[in-house]
Amino acid sequence: MREFVVTTYDWVPEVPRGYVRDLRIRWALEEAELPYRVEATSFRDRGAEHFLHQPFGQAPWLTHGEISISESGAILLYIGEFSQHLMPTTPKERAKVIEWVFAALNSVEMASLPWSLFKFTNDEEMTAGRNLIEGFLSTRLKHMEQVFEDREWLTEAFSIADILMSDVLRLVDRFDGLAEYPLCHSFVERATARPAFAKALEDQLAHFAASD
Amino acid sequence: MREFVVTTYDWVPEVPRGYVRDLRIRWALEEAELPYRVEATSFRDRGAEHFLHQPFGQAPWLTHGEISISESGAILLYIGEFSQHLMPTTPKERAKVIEWVFAALNSVEMASLPWSLFKFTNDEEMTAGRNLIEGFLSTRLKHMEQVFEDREWLTEAFSIADILMSDVLRLVDRFDGLAEYPLCHSFVERATARPAFAKALEDQLAHFAASD
Repeated sequence: MREFVVTTYDWVPEVPRGYVRDLRIRWALEEAELPYRVEATSFRDRGAEHFLHQPFGQAPWLTHGEISISESGAILLYIGEFSQHLMPTTPKERAKVIEWVFAALNSVEMASLPWSLFKFTNDEEMTAGRNLIEGFLSTRLKHMEQVFEDREWLTEAFSIADILMSDVLRLVDRFDGLAEYPLCHSFVERATARPAFAKALEDQLAHFAASD
Repeated sequence: MREFVVTTYDWVPEVPRGYVRDLRIRWALEEAELPYRVEATSFRDRGAEHFLHQPFGQAPWLTHGEISISESGAILLYIGEFSQHLMPTTPKERAKVIEWVFAALNSVEMASLPWSLFKFTNDEEMTAGRNLIEGFLSTRLKHMEQVFEDREWLTEAFSIADILMSDVLRLVDRFDGLAEYPLCHSFVERATARPAFAKALEDQLAHFAASD
């Protein structure tokens, strides 16, 4: 039987702990109740083997038999094929989940991650470009707030899209960026209250702590 | 027979012309030789019907029978299922294409689009956060430059991933951001030399010009 193996860094500094993207993969595998193993790759010394699996020298990647795949969105789509808990089977419902997967990563995270880089450095200087970044994120959040007016999850049932969107919004929340978006905030709370998230988070923190 | 219908804005200002994302969809449909029709939605007046198809009030979206799907990445994955010119059929090759689709949108565009917002406003002030944005993009481009050392396209053959990655890098090139990355630049030139790109670009420009 082919085994799911998640490879992440052996160690990371304090700040990113709890936010390294292997969390998304662990979370999905826990939700799907698929057995998996975690392997470690050096954070400080990223060699040719690492780049074979992940062209930007990032983590995580997933291996499954002869398949090796990186990018959290691609990995979650892959895992989704093995679980109806994470991905519906009718073409119409599948299309909606896939749409929200990309919405999370290419419409919301493309705005939120750059925004978080400024928060991270306590950079408060509102230059012309920075104003566009602020407006980019607030426009996206305003629309997400409307989306959550009538639903618990992004589509009919919890899916890989909710894992990605809530993890993206969780980083905004860390910098208090959801204060004006209570429905986005409660979506993050609802998603992260799931036992599979708690297990994934606890396991990631323990994994990095073990190398301190 | 179900028809592919691409909906884009009826009109946009001069600056984004040639870069509106319906280009990615037109390009893919031209490569796949799938017949399609283009419909227009109001740029100035975005109503409830628009948000039903695209939750952020953006364009484009694709309809195909009862399917309505937005997000250029999701739409290209959907179109890829109808054409071996755009998406391989073996699981291992498919996984690589899907990985590169997300790499284009969540690893490269997430760095390049924010960077372009600063270029767009001629904002040259190198604050702490801005320095992270610059480093984020240059690290990604450095790795992409290595990727293109040994290949013509991202995977064995031209695919939806090449459409997305070249369109992402094309915007960087517009602001002269590929000057130090000659292999990325020549990838963009190679991709945009394809007749399907030329047709898609010409059609988009004509579509918007018709509403002036």
